[in-house]
Amino acid sequence: MTSAATPAYRRLSVEERRGQLLETAQELFAHRAPEDVSLDDVAEAAGVSRPLVYRYFPGGKQQLYEAALRSSADALHRCFTEPPAGPPTERLGRVLDRYLAFVDGHDAGFSALLRGGSVAETSRTSAIVDEVRRAAAEQILVHLGVERPGPRLGMLVRTWIAAVEAASLIWLDGGKQPPAAELRDWLVDHLVALLVATTASDEETAGVVKRLLAQETPEGPVATLARRVIPVVGEAAHLL
Amino acid sequence: MTSAATPAYRRLSVEERRGQLLETAQELFAHRAPEDVSLDDVAEAAGVSRPLVYRYFPGGKQQLYEAALRSSADALHRCFTEPPAGPPTERLGRVLDRYLAFVDGHDAGFSALLRGGSVAETSRTSAIVDEVRRAAAEQILVHLGVERPGPRLGMLVRTWIAAVEAASLIWLDGGKQPPAAELRDWLVDHLVALLVATTASDEETAGVVKRLLAQETPEGPVATLARRVIPVVGEAAHLL
Repeated sequence: MTSAATPAYRRLSVEERRGQLLETAQELFAHRAPEDVSLDDVAEAAGVSRPLVYRYFPGGKQQLYEAALRSSADALHRCFTEPPAGPPTERLGRVLDRYLAFVDGHDAGFSALLRGGSVAETSRTSAIVDEVRRAAAEQILVHLGVERPGPRLGMLVRTWIAAVEAASLIWLDGGKQPPAAELRDWLVDHLVALLVATTASDEETAGVVKRLLAQETPEGPVATLARRVIPVVGEAAHLL
Repeated sequence: MTSAATPAYRRLSVEERRGQLLETAQELFAHRAPEDVSLDDVAEAAGVSRPLVYRYFPGGKQQLYEAALRSSADALHRCFTEPPAGPPTERLGRVLDRYLAFVDGHDAGFSALLRGGSVAETSRTSAIVDEVRRAAAEQILVHLGVERPGPRLGMLVRTWIAAVEAASLIWLDGGKQPPAAELRDWLVDHLVALLVATTASDEETAGVVKRLLAQETPEGPVATLARRVIPVVGEAAHLL
């Protein structure tokens, strides 16, 4: 490797260089499927030689992909943290705003990762994705005021997270329509509806919903949803 | 290959032999992750030699896996078909009963497939899974009386399907608890709740729900859900 063959780059410390390569890889993997990113792409975007990338990531592209995924998972994890104060649906709305901004900023990579069937997918990458799902579920339970949920409430939270993931993929496929704020509101309504419906068959969820409702306001999403749904329920009068 | 080295087997036609091998593979892949099934396992369970399996499936285990998956996907697809008569929630309940029986009968294979990260997972296997999801969505839309759903209703149906998949995996992980019938009822409630909540923000869904409610009975799941949820909504009186 002669200095003529590689672009001039400022001397970075080992840590700085590793961080720079990782950041570059993260940026590339965010907007392309892993199949569509080569080690040369990373080297070129970082302005370094291919051997230099290998020096920091001897496992090559797969190692870079997993490191980038790890780092994205940590960023996503941070999105979930929200102080447990104020109406719960507003807290959820803020978390979803951050989550959808993350999805927006990692579009093609997010799709490729969750859609499955990628050659870069391994039991390690699946474990990272599962870890993020678990973190999301834990954060929701914090706001529901539940430490160890019973099976029904646990299933409720995890199925809602699966629905959010599916909605995100559909949203990306549909050119990020509807606007993120509209999708957020619908996802909040979705969780509220699911919680309320589950009170019918689960005592624990009934208790949770009671506590949540006490914290909502007449201007908040629950009140708005209730006002708009009441006339629909009126149409079910023949059932009651 | 001497006759002493292989078990005696009755002469089958080419079609019969292919079918027998496929059925054997399907049975093995149903209850184990693809990693845990070898070509020798298939040969042994079918009572034939390994070379014979290769003669029918030159692509080896991966080809057998994909053929078995194809055939399971077709079986699942058939579960979804239900005559469009009677209360819609009862139709949905029957489809879910068949679906959960399928999940029950394909436990480990179903988990491995949907959990991702398996070496047997390729863009072809993902395409088969997506095809099943699409077929499920189409069947639901038939019963909702909608041919080409708008974006919100389309997203609603697909996110509910994702929630059903997630619930199935959690159900398998939890030793198939609660009993399938209880899970089925909750999944029906889940869709009803989601539809009703979505009437608040989508005209098309409001029309669909109106038509659906007219077909329900006072003894059916919608009426039961409504009766049990009304007192909970009463607790939200301060919001209205």
